[in-house]
Amino acid sequence: MQINEFQEMMRHLYFHRDSERGVKGTYDWLVEEVEELREALEEENKEATEREFADVIAWLASLANITGINLEKAALEKYNYKCPKCHQSPCQCKF
Amino acid sequence: MQINEFQEMMRHLYFHRDSERGVKGTYDWLVEEVEELREALEEENKEATEREFADVIAWLASLANITGINLEKAALEKYNYKCPKCHQSPCQCKF
Repeated sequence: MQINEFQEMMRHLYFHRDSERGVKGTYDWLVEEVEELREALEEENKEATEREFADVIAWLASLANITGINLEKAALEKYNYKCPKCHQSPCQCKF
Repeated sequence: MQINEFQEMMRHLYFHRDSERGVKGTYDWLVEEVEELREALEEENKEATEREFADVIAWLASLANITGINLEKAALEKYNYKCPKCHQSPCQCKF
């Protein structure tokens, strides 16, 4: 599925709730899901990890919806087959 | 772009670095990017916000790569045109 299509699906499912909750509340949910992802990773629970990855990208899309950001466009403007820092593919940055 | 294709692009660009850094280090970078997204949102800086949304989905894809998770599959198994809790579209959950 396209990133755009996923974001639009999330808009259809949740925009009425996301817009009521607002930016700060939706951001806080995203943070909570990122924390739950950590817990699933630490437990090495693959099914829970998959569910938490799903939740993080879902809440990220919800947050993009209520802040007027096109997530796919934003992602591809920065990451478009080259590293945005060294402009190489694969990345050759010296850290 | 498909979510899968974005994850594969990130694998091509960064897997050598992500796998060296490991799961915990890559997770910590994701958390850092989520924090930078908060700062950009609070500043109401649209260009910075777009860049931080890009970074969050990029690091999420990197983390998925080194943990063996297919992000698109995980997302669609949980969110597939219906709310996973109430099974309605749009969501009708009572909170």
